[in-house]
Amino acid sequence: MKKETFFRTQPLSSASQTYSRRHEGAVLWLTGLSGSGKSTLSKALASALIPLGYQCYVLDGDNLREGLNSDLGFTQIDRAENIRRGSEVANLFADAGLICIAAFISPYFEDRLQARGRCCQPFHEIYIAADLTTCEARDPKGLYKKARSGDLLNFTGIGAPYEPPENPQYVINTASEELDTCVGMLVNYVQMNIPLLKKMK
Amino acid sequence: MKKETFFRTQPLSSASQTYSRRHEGAVLWLTGLSGSGKSTLSKALASALIPLGYQCYVLDGDNLREGLNSDLGFTQIDRAENIRRGSEVANLFADAGLICIAAFISPYFEDRLQARGRCCQPFHEIYIAADLTTCEARDPKGLYKKARSGDLLNFTGIGAPYEPPENPQYVINTASEELDTCVGMLVNYVQMNIPLLKKMK
Repeated sequence: MKKETFFRTQPLSSASQTYSRRHEGAVLWLTGLSGSGKSTLSKALASALIPLGYQCYVLDGDNLREGLNSDLGFTQIDRAENIRRGSEVANLFADAGLICIAAFISPYFEDRLQARGRCCQPFHEIYIAADLTTCEARDPKGLYKKARSGDLLNFTGIGAPYEPPENPQYVINTASEELDTCVGMLVNYVQMNIPLLKKMK
Repeated sequence: MKKETFFRTQPLSSASQTYSRRHEGAVLWLTGLSGSGKSTLSKALASALIPLGYQCYVLDGDNLREGLNSDLGFTQIDRAENIRRGSEVANLFADAGLICIAAFISPYFEDRLQARGRCCQPFHEIYIAADLTTCEARDPKGLYKKARSGDLLNFTGIGAPYEPPENPQYVINTASEELDTCVGMLVNYVQMNIPLLKKMK
């Protein structure tokens, strides 16, 4: 059954109007296979943006799955709920005026569309487009090995599909570009699309 | 059955070390009856702290129940889950270096203890101690009236208990003090307990 997709147009609360800001809030949604470098890029991007005057926070599997989403597994329903909660929290951070860098495999087109719909601030879908062969060769957490041996079911790319974005705002290929180059491209993207305000509000 | 209470001692992610901060992150947890003034105080407090250089975000029923917690009702189990998720998100905001002003009725001692345990940054329990008679006379959302007529079951103070904090960090009585006085007291509390750092990190 096709899920209902809704799009919020109003901020969640008028409280957001009262915060001191150096730039508008936004969500940078990084999607891609496990091992594509989403978390690494996210943390490097935050570290590069902060000295420029940006306020950022990284949301990823590491800080959500051990806390807010510790009750969720990896079935398709639980993955959808993982993305739902992740995007709701990303929306709150963007509402607070931060750039929320949200790094989630988020393999399903529909879940990402829903995530976008939940966000009142600009939502930038960034496709971290490393190919499966490269990601599997990296295998930083040994998950591909487990998936190939059958110890890990429904693993994206092996036992479950990854649906690439059809029309992302930006694409970064970490298989063909060095980390520093990728970070530089993303910093430029942010500076172009989320400019610093000249005056503090 | 007594729930397991755990206390985190480490930040959720090392990413938090990279953010530019003017003060340490913290959670101000405002607990009290419906109508005690938690949300009003929270928003007024944020508006007062921001010109002083603090970064704040208000989490309350309004922005959680319509988004992240829209799947939850008001049974004791759902209320506990509401508080669990609220405190996990508050912890993320504190991890990001903000003062998260979390305004939740949070009527149960055990749920508040669990909320404190989830927070890696300082957790300040602030009891908004207006008496039931005053809150019921205010009845800003007409909920007490519904609870008295039986249209709203398990409403805190009428059909369900409120367990006052035994040892809160601070108590504000909005029944005996004006709003401006209450905000001033809370601003002083914050300045005493979460001082601005002299140098930007």
